[in-house]
Amino acid sequence: MSEKKCDCGRQHVFDRRDALSLFSGAGLAFGAGPALAMATKSLQRPEDERYMRLAIAEAAKGDFPFGAVIVRDGKVVSTGRNMGVTNNDPTAHGEMVAIRRFVADNPAKQLKGATLYTSGEPCPMCMGAIVWCGIGRVVFAASIEQLSKRLGQIMITSRAVAEATPFADIEITGGLLALEALALFDKK
Amino acid sequence: MSEKKCDCGRQHVFDRRDALSLFSGAGLAFGAGPALAMATKSLQRPEDERYMRLAIAEAAKGDFPFGAVIVRDGKVVSTGRNMGVTNNDPTAHGEMVAIRRFVADNPAKQLKGATLYTSGEPCPMCMGAIVWCGIGRVVFAASIEQLSKRLGQIMITSRAVAEATPFADIEITGGLLALEALALFDKK
Repeated sequence: MSEKKCDCGRQHVFDRRDALSLFSGAGLAFGAGPALAMATKSLQRPEDERYMRLAIAEAAKGDFPFGAVIVRDGKVVSTGRNMGVTNNDPTAHGEMVAIRRFVADNPAKQLKGATLYTSGEPCPMCMGAIVWCGIGRVVFAASIEQLSKRLGQIMITSRAVAEATPFADIEITGGLLALEALALFDKK
Repeated sequence: MSEKKCDCGRQHVFDRRDALSLFSGAGLAFGAGPALAMATKSLQRPEDERYMRLAIAEAAKGDFPFGAVIVRDGKVVSTGRNMGVTNNDPTAHGEMVAIRRFVADNPAKQLKGATLYTSGEPCPMCMGAIVWCGIGRVVFAASIEQLSKRLGQIMITSRAVAEATPFADIEITGGLLALEALALFDKK
């Protein structure tokens, strides 16, 4: 495991196991300030960029530019993009759509240990869904802090949700291709 | 507005407007200790108990004992109970089911300002959904803290989610008929 800056120029790619002790008790969104950067380490894997590009491609088609893909055993098993307007459903975030599509056709237990790639850090709704489904790893591009400059956000990080969940151990990798994900907001 | 103990014997019925300054920054679940009790005030309304009993009746039929009803302009416009097993969907919490049922048949914007009654305090997933739907008031029975003694919970209160949302102002009333809601766990 090596330290690495992400493409947005900040060191905000995290390893839950290393950072846990630093953030326990923190319930609100945090920026990538100096104190935080000290604890960040990359968990990026060789395949991550390829899957994140698929998530960003989904986002490009969304009602709002958010997209997600779920990967299991090296295969994309579900995709989703924001369909809040299309579906008349404010809960139809990319991650939720991908999860719902998966469980509509497959045993939900197959989500355990899967990886979810998303163009935007999961909000508490989506992160809660990820927890309840037993998804083992989340890779996100733009952070909630970054997204909050474009759209109103619930300022609780995916990490805070994971750390508040005693029965789950979710690995989180953030910041991958963040600039590409954020650029979609300029095209809308 | 008057102070009032709820039926579980603790003063944990909150008024967001009064309590806001005390809890800002708190992201994890809190108990109803002395410091908290000092700030609690009842927002319970005459009709609340009737609707909460409907939510508890829904819970009694759920895969897990959680149920919810959505009320708008004095009418129940949707109901939901936990259908995680039945629907092969770990996200099918009572609140989510009630919301999805509503938006399947009605314009989502009609949820703005509605009240959601739930037998268990909304988890971050459900509270996030409540935020995104613009639901204006949440009334819950058993708290996340109480529920965590029965089932694993994400230890972030509904209040913490509401307070982390700068674009929404959600009124929360907690603890109503909590013992009745918790008793359902003993029947399972």
